[in-house]
Amino acid sequence: MDWFTEEHENFGVKIRVKKKLFDFKGLQHIQIYETIGFGKMLILDGAIQLTEKDEAFYHEMLVHVPMLNHKNPKKVLVIGGGDGGAIREILKHNPDEVVMVEIDKDVINACRKFIRIDNGALDDPRVSIINEDGIKFIKEADEKFDVLIVDGTDPNPVSKSLVEKSFYKACSKITNIFNTQSQSPFIQQNFFKEIFDNIIGFNEKSVYLSFVPTYPLGLWSFSIATNDQLTFDLNTIEQRFNERNIETKHYTPKLHIASFALPRWVEEIVRGGK
Amino acid sequence: MDWFTEEHENFGVKIRVKKKLFDFKGLQHIQIYETIGFGKMLILDGAIQLTEKDEAFYHEMLVHVPMLNHKNPKKVLVIGGGDGGAIREILKHNPDEVVMVEIDKDVINACRKFIRIDNGALDDPRVSIINEDGIKFIKEADEKFDVLIVDGTDPNPVSKSLVEKSFYKACSKITNIFNTQSQSPFIQQNFFKEIFDNIIGFNEKSVYLSFVPTYPLGLWSFSIATNDQLTFDLNTIEQRFNERNIETKHYTPKLHIASFALPRWVEEIVRGGK
Repeated sequence: MDWFTEEHENFGVKIRVKKKLFDFKGLQHIQIYETIGFGKMLILDGAIQLTEKDEAFYHEMLVHVPMLNHKNPKKVLVIGGGDGGAIREILKHNPDEVVMVEIDKDVINACRKFIRIDNGALDDPRVSIINEDGIKFIKEADEKFDVLIVDGTDPNPVSKSLVEKSFYKACSKITNIFNTQSQSPFIQQNFFKEIFDNIIGFNEKSVYLSFVPTYPLGLWSFSIATNDQLTFDLNTIEQRFNERNIETKHYTPKLHIASFALPRWVEEIVRGGK
Repeated sequence: MDWFTEEHENFGVKIRVKKKLFDFKGLQHIQIYETIGFGKMLILDGAIQLTEKDEAFYHEMLVHVPMLNHKNPKKVLVIGGGDGGAIREILKHNPDEVVMVEIDKDVINACRKFIRIDNGALDDPRVSIINEDGIKFIKEADEKFDVLIVDGTDPNPVSKSLVEKSFYKACSKITNIFNTQSQSPFIQQNFFKEIFDNIIGFNEKSVYLSFVPTYPLGLWSFSIATNDQLTFDLNTIEQRFNERNIETKHYTPKLHIASFALPRWVEEIVRGGK
């Protein structure tokens, strides 16, 4: 049996695979494997995007933290997220409308056919899928959203416009609450810091962390911002979570609050320094 | 340049190394490398025990959580921990006496010569090092300790007696507060569950998690127990932390409290089921 290896400059992660289900080079190099221990696995340009075993850790933390910061999120925008995992979680909040802007339609088609972690969310009538560049969509948008979630890949030629100040500034004009995955502060400190620092235009921003075991060395960050105020009150979060009847594998309201307690070295990166 | 690979059944972690500093097969196979991105690295029987870049994440969470649960820990016992990282952290609490029982003296000697993460703690006059089997020491001990910390390796022929009920029961007779690393609930669910369930004899026990990026897939657990009551009050922990003037890289009192907020799937493993 073979190994898939995600190789970085000074380290790598290997996952044992039993079958390659899909391999296609378009806008990005898409590979889908059946693994031995982690279910199906999606790779974009050599980087693990998800495995069935731990994708919920990522998608639940990406989605429920911003969605529960809003008292009644009805209109939600997702940039990226072609695998449908983020939309699956968003629909648990019973929104009226979800717009997904995914630049690479081949990712959507491949996930629809071979992975289906979306549990049908990609075909839900409340979901519109727009095949366009996220930054273009946002700069031209003439509607507003309650929550905007960026579920992008590592900064690369396709996604790098999603980590620029002008992008975040444009987001701040069309959404109340904003959240983006923001890489690993442990092994991609510069990317992480650049994303966090570039988020401008909002009233308040903060960082939280999650375990995502199959992302590089397992520690992942999210950067959340709002034009209002972030809620760190457990009772408020618990009440909204219970009212919406949300079921999760990984997320809990207590974990939500706890995930903002940063290790000292992450606090120091966020606060400034280098 | 070469790679060191820690290979498990269905996954592996690779670290790029530039030089092997030490290689010796005794009670355990000890290897020490100079890496490119993670400082020096200690391997026992093929498993990464520490890298200089993230060992503080592990040792600080292993030590400060139990030590700050005690209002004045003066006498501390460590089982294992031959690298000296745990003792380094314990000494920050200004104890009168630390006893370290490490079965493999070659680990101590190798770390003393090639790694020195102990910052001199292994030679501190308050520290006694006993080269003996931990379970034998504990079953024969006629003295009591304020805090007992088990800094063992993965369950293997050398360390497996450290995860049996009779060991934990004996520990409960000689210490007020007990803490042990308890493996990864993500990829070693059975080991984790066995350790947690086997901890008997105490009044109360609980689990907390930490990021340890160079341990398998980055998510690690600790199981803490006491004959008294565990403290989950942030003010109490902060006050003790400040009074003792402790400096850390990773640990903060807020992170201490937050680390007991478990993902739902970990809660479910702990509570029972499978």
